[in-house]
Amino acid sequence: MVKKRQILVIGNNTTGCTPKHEKIAYEIGVEIAKSNSLLITGGLGGVMNACSHGAKDANGLTMGIIPQDDPTFANDYCDIVIPSGMGFTRDFLNALSADGVIIVGGGSGTLSEVCAAYMSKKPMVAIRGIDSAITYIDGYVDYRKNVKIIGVDTPKEAVSKIIELITA
Amino acid sequence: MVKKRQILVIGNNTTGCTPKHEKIAYEIGVEIAKSNSLLITGGLGGVMNACSHGAKDANGLTMGIIPQDDPTFANDYCDIVIPSGMGFTRDFLNALSADGVIIVGGGSGTLSEVCAAYMSKKPMVAIRGIDSAITYIDGYVDYRKNVKIIGVDTPKEAVSKIIELITA
Amino acid sequence: MVKKRQILVIGNNTTGCTPKHEKIAYEIGVEIAKSNSLLITGGLGGVMNACSHGAKDANGLTMGIIPQDDPTFANDYCDIVIPSGMGFTRDFLNALSADGVIIVGGGSGTLSEVCAAYMSKKPMVAIRGIDSAITYIDGYVDYRKNVKIIGVDTPKEAVSKIIELITA
Amino acid sequence: MVKKRQILVIGNNTTGCTPKHEKIAYEIGVEIAKSNSLLITGGLGGVMNACSHGAKDANGLTMGIIPQDDPTFANDYCDIVIPSGMGFTRDFLNALSADGVIIVGGGSGTLSEVCAAYMSKKPMVAIRGIDSAITYIDGYVDYRKNVKIIGVDTPKEAVSKIIELITA
Repeated sequence: MVKKRQILVIGNNTTGCTPKHEKIAYEIGVEIAKSNSLLITGGLGGVMNACSHGAKDANGLTMGIIPQDDPTFANDYCDIVIPSGMGFTRDFLNALSADGVIIVGGGSGTLSEVCAAYMSKKPMVAIRGIDSAITYIDGYVDYRKNVKIIGVDTPKEAVSKIIELITA
Repeated sequence: MVKKRQILVIGNNTTGCTPKHEKIAYEIGVEIAKSNSLLITGGLGGVMNACSHGAKDANGLTMGIIPQDDPTFANDYCDIVIPSGMGFTRDFLNALSADGVIIVGGGSGTLSEVCAAYMSKKPMVAIRGIDSAITYIDGYVDYRKNVKIIGVDTPKEAVSKIIELITA
Repeated sequence: MVKKRQILVIGNNTTGCTPKHEKIAYEIGVEIAKSNSLLITGGLGGVMNACSHGAKDANGLTMGIIPQDDPTFANDYCDIVIPSGMGFTRDFLNALSADGVIIVGGGSGTLSEVCAAYMSKKPMVAIRGIDSAITYIDGYVDYRKNVKIIGVDTPKEAVSKIIELITA
Repeated sequence: MVKKRQILVIGNNTTGCTPKHEKIAYEIGVEIAKSNSLLITGGLGGVMNACSHGAKDANGLTMGIIPQDDPTFANDYCDIVIPSGMGFTRDFLNALSADGVIIVGGGSGTLSEVCAAYMSKKPMVAIRGIDSAITYIDGYVDYRKNVKIIGVDTPKEAVSKIIELITA
């Protein structure tokens, strides 16, 4: 078995992604690279772009699974591009491809990925204290209460926690 | 143009579906049949089964889009079965197939369909006052506050409202 | 069980569809309607349009599963539209949705549907004597030699044969 | 832009894969690794397993896109696994993910990937002189006649030719 650890990072595309989200995402990318895991994102802008940027700056390996059927729509920091051609339905593919998920804020697209990850029983952590639509999932699942989605406070903690959950 | 009005009804599968949910779903099915619309569901149990049952009892037309690749997994009340073979990814297909969506409670699967419907800008109504995971979507979108997802109180109101929103 | 018989008709889109193909497809649509089966097509032009046209002229029920995520791309003869949003990947969905398949010529898209139908063990018939890319499939499967894909000579024979194979 | 060259290798799963197919596939994997490209396969047995084995023995990077939703179904030589959960529909995802395709024999599944690659205009080469279902595609496209799919005689030639076609 040569399979790498595959960590999905999700959050807002360009719209709704603040400099604070970007800074956190970038640092998560750096930590994922340092952990020698594969970073998977949705391959577009905002959190996806910042996180992949961080991973590449730290010499990590990155993959983007994009809605379009043309790889040139991916951001510049994806070593590997899956141009799924299935529109936002690719959100499910992202979740299925993850061994674990890190949530950095996000809106309805991110929420659909959380649902898919939840249904396929993937461990999830979420950065506390940033704007997000994802507060309640499936009956009182609240990451701020550390139920099902584990709340974390820093990029470093996010990556070490998700690796711990994947390995458990 | 001969295309029928296509209404998707979503909610819990067998697990989590109470007699109250089933009664409401059945009546929504009857109303959809009476409105001469096509009822689309996920084709399995619980809300999906009850709603299709109601529609067939009122001589309506029903379609079930199921996760499996074998049509025999569909409930007994589907005139048409799409055995998608794509697992829960079919939730996106359900949403894309809808001209409008009626929400009858639900958990993480239902929530993923709501996200997909939201992203593809489909009108949505939700039955008020029943247990549901779907309280907050995309930054304070709360159907109990009538934001984005319109709250309704009865099956009859659900169907007339969604038809009004589809036609608008 | 209320499920209808679901027959998929495949062949060229506008490009590559001759008046001869259209005439045959139209008549197949009429026969499918008369047999009280659901006609499924890819919902676009050429063979898909002609066949749906025939079915509607004979008061049949028609469904189109299209690559786009917008139902207005479907032809005017679809009672039900599945705007799959998954591009040509929808070819597999077409095949999975069929109880049986009728082939009216066709190119690479049609051939991918034949492969998908073959892999999911759906019965297939093909009109003999018209231009088609589909001559050899999976090791000397040749519909002109009546191996695996059964060759037929008329629209009437195509529909009666596929119904016989579905029922067997 | 950090994107790697992504080469898809397709052919029979365990059934239908002879020692000759395996030997060729293994050597293609070695050549792809030496060219510093990413090897993509369907992640299962036969040609997919042999090719990934070769790539790993030569320290290459490998990805398997599998039908199942569980990564443990992939062979032991995949660095990255996409457990698509969409059954054989993943054949289209394979084709879309490729910058170019190398064909090593194959049956109906391989043929569906060829159709998808053809529709998305990906360059293709095929090893001559081995058993294969893929002889005619889209009207007299015959790789033995070097039409559309370019015939090659050795693993080394296959990889150098597909790189030339991707770069062109």
